[in-house]
Amino acid sequence: SDSQDLDLAILDSVMGQLDASRIRENLRELSKEPHVATSPRDEALVQLLLGRWKDTATGLDSAKTYEYRVLLSFPNAEQPNSVEVVGPNGTIFHSFQPFEKNLTGEQAGPNVLQPYAAYAPPGTPKGLLVYANQGSEEDFKELEDQGINLEGTIALTRYGGVGRGAKAINAAKHGVVGVLVYTDPGDINDGKSLPSETFPNSWRLPPSGVERGSYYEYFGDPLTPYLPAHPSSFRLDPHNTSGFPPIPTQPIGFEDAKDLLCNLTGTSAPASWQGALGCEYKLGPGFGPNGSFPAGSEVKVSVHNRLELRTSSNVLGIIQGAVEPDRYVIYGNHRDSWVHGAVDPSSGTAVLLEISRVLGTLLKKGTWRPRRSIIFASWGAEEFGLIGSTEFTEEFLSKLQERTVAYINVDISVFSNATLRAQGTPPVQSVIFSATKEISAPGSSGLSIYDNWIRYTNRTSPVYGLVPSLGTLGAGSDYAAFVHFLGITSMDLAYTYDRSKTSARIYPTYHTAFDTFDYVEKFLDPGFSSHQAVARTAGSVLLRLSDSLFLPLNVSDYSETLQSFLQTAQEVLGTLLEKQNISLGPLVTAVANFKTAAASLGEHILTLQKSSPDPLQVRMVNDQLMLLERAFLNPRAFPEERHYSHVLWAPNTASVATFPGLANACARAQKINSGSEAWAEVQRQLSIVVTALEGAAATLVPVADL
Amino acid sequence: SDSQDLDLAILDSVMGQLDASRIRENLRELSKEPHVATSPRDEALVQLLLGRWKDTATGLDSAKTYEYRVLLSFPNAEQPNSVEVVGPNGTIFHSFQPFEKNLTGEQAGPNVLQPYAAYAPPGTPKGLLVYANQGSEEDFKELEDQGINLEGTIALTRYGGVGRGAKAINAAKHGVVGVLVYTDPGDINDGKSLPSETFPNSWRLPPSGVERGSYYEYFGDPLTPYLPAHPSSFRLDPHNTSGFPPIPTQPIGFEDAKDLLCNLTGTSAPASWQGALGCEYKLGPGFGPNGSFPAGSEVKVSVHNRLELRTSSNVLGIIQGAVEPDRYVIYGNHRDSWVHGAVDPSSGTAVLLEISRVLGTLLKKGTWRPRRSIIFASWGAEEFGLIGSTEFTEEFLSKLQERTVAYINVDISVFSNATLRAQGTPPVQSVIFSATKEISAPGSSGLSIYDNWIRYTNRTSPVYGLVPSLGTLGAGSDYAAFVHFLGITSMDLAYTYDRSKTSARIYPTYHTAFDTFDYVEKFLDPGFSSHQAVARTAGSVLLRLSDSLFLPLNVSDYSETLQSFLQTAQEVLGTLLEKQNISLGPLVTAVANFKTAAASLGEHILTLQKSSPDPLQVRMVNDQLMLLERAFLNPRAFPEERHYSHVLWAPNTASVATFPGLANACARAQKINSGSEAWAEVQRQLSIVVTALEGAAATLVPVADL
Ligand SMILES: [Ca+2]
Ligand SMILES: [Ca+2]
Ligand SMILES: [Zn+2]
Ligand SMILES: [Zn+2]
Ligand SMILES: [Zn+2]
Ligand SMILES: [Zn+2]
Repeated sequence: SDSQDLDLAILDSVMGQLDASRIRENLRELSKEPHVATSPRDEALVQLLLGRWKDTATGLDSAKTYEYRVLLSFPNAEQPNSVEVVGPNGTIFHSFQPFEKNLTGEQAGPNVLQPYAAYAPPGTPKGLLVYANQGSEEDFKELEDQGINLEGTIALTRYGGVGRGAKAINAAKHGVVGVLVYTDPGDINDGKSLPSETFPNSWRLPPSGVERGSYYEYFGDPLTPYLPAHPSSFRLDPHNTSGFPPIPTQPIGFEDAKDLLCNLTGTSAPASWQGALGCEYKLGPGFGPNGSFPAGSEVKVSVHNRLELRTSSNVLGIIQGAVEPDRYVIYGNHRDSWVHGAVDPSSGTAVLLEISRVLGTLLKKGTWRPRRSIIFASWGAEEFGLIGSTEFTEEFLSKLQERTVAYINVDISVFSNATLRAQGTPPVQSVIFSATKEISAPGSSGLSIYDNWIRYTNRTSPVYGLVPSLGTLGAGSDYAAFVHFLGITSMDLAYTYDRSKTSARIYPTYHTAFDTFDYVEKFLDPGFSSHQAVARTAGSVLLRLSDSLFLPLNVSDYSETLQSFLQTAQEVLGTLLEKQNISLGPLVTAVANFKTAAASLGEHILTLQKSSPDPLQVRMVNDQLMLLERAFLNPRAFPEERHYSHVLWAPNTASVATFPGLANACARAQKINSGSEAWAEVQRQLSIVVTALEGAAATLVPVADL
Repeated sequence: SDSQDLDLAILDSVMGQLDASRIRENLRELSKEPHVATSPRDEALVQLLLGRWKDTATGLDSAKTYEYRVLLSFPNAEQPNSVEVVGPNGTIFHSFQPFEKNLTGEQAGPNVLQPYAAYAPPGTPKGLLVYANQGSEEDFKELEDQGINLEGTIALTRYGGVGRGAKAINAAKHGVVGVLVYTDPGDINDGKSLPSETFPNSWRLPPSGVERGSYYEYFGDPLTPYLPAHPSSFRLDPHNTSGFPPIPTQPIGFEDAKDLLCNLTGTSAPASWQGALGCEYKLGPGFGPNGSFPAGSEVKVSVHNRLELRTSSNVLGIIQGAVEPDRYVIYGNHRDSWVHGAVDPSSGTAVLLEISRVLGTLLKKGTWRPRRSIIFASWGAEEFGLIGSTEFTEEFLSKLQERTVAYINVDISVFSNATLRAQGTPPVQSVIFSATKEISAPGSSGLSIYDNWIRYTNRTSPVYGLVPSLGTLGAGSDYAAFVHFLGITSMDLAYTYDRSKTSARIYPTYHTAFDTFDYVEKFLDPGFSSHQAVARTAGSVLLRLSDSLFLPLNVSDYSETLQSFLQTAQEVLGTLLEKQNISLGPLVTAVANFKTAAASLGEHILTLQKSSPDPLQVRMVNDQLMLLERAFLNPRAFPEERHYSHVLWAPNTASVATFPGLANACARAQKINSGSEAWAEVQRQLSIVVTALEGAAATLVPVADL
C-alpha cells in the first residue's frame, strides 16, 4: 500500500540473519586470487556477483553489467621497474628489490603486479638523492631554504601529508627528475620494523611491503571527463591530459628506503621529518663518504609503466521498490584490488554480498519488498581513480540526480575492530544514529554500536549534547562522484582503530601483497564480528532509507555544520575580510534562513506524522529531503576542480575549517603579489555560497510559499 | 482528492469569462504612460499588479515583489545623443532629429526616453560614412572585398539579419569607430514611407520612428552572471564586462537615414543590400559631390549613455495547488516597456491580468483550486536583456528546476490578427493542439484556432500528417532563462501576421514611441478579439497543465525533432565527418533509443489511464514527463555561451539545422587554418549530445529498470 512503512520485525529478522561465517566465506572466495581491475580474475568476480544476484532463491530482481573503456596504467611484466644506485664510474652498485618478499606464498606469481605508481610516466632519471619528507610544497621549499639545489635530483619521500600524485607534481616544480615513495615504520607500524614484529607475525607491514596506488590527481577515467567512457566517446589525447605525475615515480619498501635514507649525507632533516628507520635522516644531496655507497653515487629510477585502454565492468543489481520504484537507495563498493585485496575492497564486498543475500532471500520468499528501489553496485577500477563509479554517474547523471535518496559506500569494512567510523553529509547522521543504537557492538562490552562509538569519537553538539562524531567525505572511495559531482546525500561506513593503541595512518598492509585472507582472519577480525557489525549497520541504514514512509534524513542537522563554518569564517577570516570591505552579513542571514526553514520543515513533518498523511503529502516532503543536497551544487563554482561542484564539501586546501570556496580564495588572496582579482574571487565565492544556502533554504520552506 | 483531474466544465467557464473588453481596459491602463524599467510608472504598475493579485474577490492566494539591483543603461536627458554631419572645415553642417516627431501628443515629455542603443558606450566618434547593410560579419567582409578602408569610419546599418549588439561588435573588428542603425521601410513598412502612409494614418512606422533596444549580447544582469543581483552580490567590474557594444552606437529613423544614405558616394551596394528609401544605396565612404553635404563631410555620432545600478522588481502571484502544491506551472510576461509599450509588453500583461482575474474569481468563490500551483509573474527589466526573469532563475535555480512543470510566456500577445503563432520545446505541442482545437478563432471563419492556424503555418509530421508548425525558442523573451539555463519545458504564444499580406520583420512601431493604446485599438486588434483568442489559448494551456491528472506533455514529440536533426546531420555533415573518421553511429543509436523509450512510456501512460492508477503511480510518470527537458542540460557543453546549457536549443550559428553544438563545431572546423583541436571539439560535441540523448532515454524507461 502507499503507506508502507519500515517493518521493525523485518528489520530485526535481517539483523539476525546477517551471518559472520558467511561473510568470512565470501571474503575467502573474493580474495582467493589477485584481481586488479580488468584482470581475468576481476572478470571472474563479475560473473560471481551476477550469479549471486541472479540466484533464484537468494538473488535480486535483476542484475547486469555496465562496461566502460578506460585508461589504466600497468607495470611492464617483461621489464620491471627498478631502483638502482649507480656509482660515480657509472657501474650499478646496488639494485633494490623489485618485488615484495614471498612470505606466505601469496606474494609471487604472474598475477601479483609489481609495486608501482599507476599513471607515473616511463623514464629512467638518474640523480643525487635528496630526502623530501612527505613531498609537500612546504617540504620542497624547506629544502631550498636549506640551500639545496634540487635541479636534477631524485627525491625520496614518505607516504602521508599530501596525496600520492601531489608529491611528484610538487617535486617537478623544483627541478626534481624522479620520485621515490616509501612507508615509514613510524607512520604505519608504530615504529616497529623487524621481520619478527611484522606480518605474518603481526598485523604490521613487513620490511619489503610497498603501498601501490593511483598517482592520478582527479577521479574518473582520465580521457573522458564528464562523459561516460563508451568505446565511441570523445577522448582527450593522453599526451595533453592533466593530472598525471609529471616525472617518473616509484614506491619502495622501507627496507630499501632505509638503505637509501640512512646513507644520505648533508644537513640533518628537521625533527618532524625524522622517522623510525633507526638512523638520523639527513637531507642529501647524495650519499656520505662513510656509508654503503661510494660518495657521488646517484640513484637511477627506471619506470616502464604503460597506459592501456581496458574494459572495466560495473555490476548492478536491483530490488524494485513496491511503492516508489523511482526512488533509489544505492549501496556500493568497488570490486577491483591491487593484489588479493582481502581488506581493500573485499571486506566491503563480503559484507555487501551478505546483505544482498539476506534481502534477496526475503524477496524471493515473498516476505518483503522495499518501499523504494535498492540498487547494489560493484564498481570497477576504483583503485585507478574511482573510475567505474564516476563513469556510471556521468552516464546516468539525470536519472540518478532526480531519483537517488542516498548513496551508501562500504569499501574497507574493517580497518580494525574497535569502533564504528562513519563519514557522510549531515543528513545521514540521524539514520546512522538510529540504526547503531539498536545494534550490539562486537565483543563483550554489552554496549550498542552507538554507545561504543561515542567512547572513541565524540563531540558536543549544540542541539543534542554529546554524540559520536560523523566525519566528512573527502574523495577516498566511490562516494566521491555521488556527493561531489551529483550532490547526492552519501555516507561511508567501516569499523576502525582504537587510536590510543595505534597511530598507523591506515591498516599496515594497505595496497600491498600482504593484504590477504589470512591477514584478516588472524589479525584484523578473527571471528568476523566487526564485519558482522558493519553489515548490520549498513543493512539497517539501507532498510531504513528504503522502507521508511518518511525519509530518515534530518536536514536540520546541516544547520550545525553551517553554523560552525560560519563561526570559523567570522573568527578566523572576519577581520581580514573587513579590511577588504567584504561583509559576512549576507552569509549570516543565509545561515539563519536555512536554519529557520529546516526547523519548520522538521515541525511540519512531525505534524504530518501525527496525522494520517495522504501519499502525495509524504512524497512532497520526502522530495524536499531527498533533493536538499542538490541545492548545494554549483557546476560553475570551481571550474578548475574537475567533478567538484558541491559548494560545502569541495576540497578545502586552506587551513580554515569553513566554506571551502571562501577558505581557498582567502588563502590565495592573502599570498603576496595577489591582486584585486584575488579579492574579487573571494567576493565571488562568498556570493556563490550565499546563493546556494538561500537557494537551499527556499527548497525547505512550505512548497507553495512564494 | 489525489485523483483531481481537469474539469471541462470549469475550463469552459473560464473560456467564456475571458473578456475582450476587460483586456482592452487593462491595456489602456497599462499603456497610459511610458514605463521603462525602474521608472516611477514601472513601480506604479508593480503596485497595480500587487493590488490586482491581492484583491479579495478576484485575486490570488498571495503575491509579492522580488527586487534586484541591476545594471541598466540610459541616455542622458541633459545631453541627448546626437548625429551630425560635420563639414570638411569642421562646422556642423546638419543635425539629425534627436527625438521622434510628436504625432499624437504621446511622443514627447520627460518620460519618453530619447531613442538610444542601451549599453552602447559613450563617445563622440567622427568619420566618413559607409553603408554596411545589416552589419553582419559577411557584410563587413564584402566592404573590404570592395576595397573600402573601414578604419576610422562610421557604419550605417539597417536592423535585421544579426542581433543588435552584433552589428557594433562586427564593425569594431574592422576598425569602424561608430555605428548607426535604422529601420528600412523595405523591411518594416512593405516599402511605404510617406507620412500619409504611416502611423497615425496606418499601422506603419512613421519616418521619425526609431527602434530602441538592448545592445547587450547576453541575457541577465551584466554584472552578476549566474548569481542573483542582490545588493550584496559579487559584481563584475563594468569595465571588464564582456557583451557590451565596443563602440558608440545610435539608432535613427529612416527619414534621417535617407539623408545620409542617399547622399553617399562610392560603389553601388549589392542588390540584396538595397532598400526602399527611394535612391540607389551606395557604399561610401563619404558623401558625393552632388548631394546635400559638402564632399569630405564626416558624420559625428555623440553618445552620452550612462550605466546605472537600479532596483528592478518582479511581481509574483501564486495560486497554491490543491493536490500537488510543489508542482509549478509558471505563466509570465515582462512589465517594462521602452515607451508606452502598448503592444510590447502590455498586450501580454493585459491578457495575463484577465486570466488571473478569471481564475482568481473562481478561487475566491471556492469553486475551484488547481491540482498544481500556478505562479503568475510580471518580470522587470526585460527590455535591457531579460534581466528580471534571469535573476529570478538564478536565485531560485534548485527549487524551479525541481518543481516546474512548464513555463508559459506571453509577451507581445498580438502582433497582428491573422493566426496563432506558438513556439516551444516539442512536449508542449500536444497541449497547445488540444487547447486550440476547442477555441474559436477570432473573426467570422467559424474555424477553431487550430484549424485557422494550420492554414497559415503547417508541416507534414511523419506521425500526425499535416499539423500546424510549432516554432523553436530563441532568446527573444523571458522564456530564455527557463529553457536554456534551467531546462524547463517552455512556450511562447501570440497572435500574428498573415505573411502573404506583409513582410514586416516585426510590427512596425516596435520599441518606438508610436506603440500606443490607440495604435492597438485602431490598427492591430480593434475589438480585441485576437487578444481574447490568445487569452483563451494561454488560459486553456495553463489550466490543462495545472489541472490534468496526467501532465499533457507528449515527450514522444521530441522524437520527431531528434530524427530531423539526425537526418540533417547525416545528409549535410555525413561525408565531411566520415573523412575525419567521425562516426554518426552512436548518435543514430541514441536517437533510436530515445524514440523507443518515449514510445513505451506513452504506452505505459495509456495503460495507466485505463486503469485506476494510485496517486504515486501518476506522480512517477508525471515526474518523468516534467523532468525530461532537464536531461538535455549540460552546463559544461558550451562554456563560452553564457546561460546556454540546453544541448538541443543552444544558439546554432551555423546554417545546418541540426544539433547546435555539432553544427557550430563543424562550421568552425571547416574554416581554413582550423587544426586538429577543432575536429576534437566536433567529436566532443557529438559525445555530449549522445550522452544527453542516452541519459534522457534512461529517464523514460520504466523507473526501476536497470
Ligand atoms: Ca568519463
Ligand atoms: Ca545575475
Ligand atoms: Zn578501496
Ligand atoms: Zn584501495
Ligand atoms: Zn517584450
Ligand atoms: Zn521588447
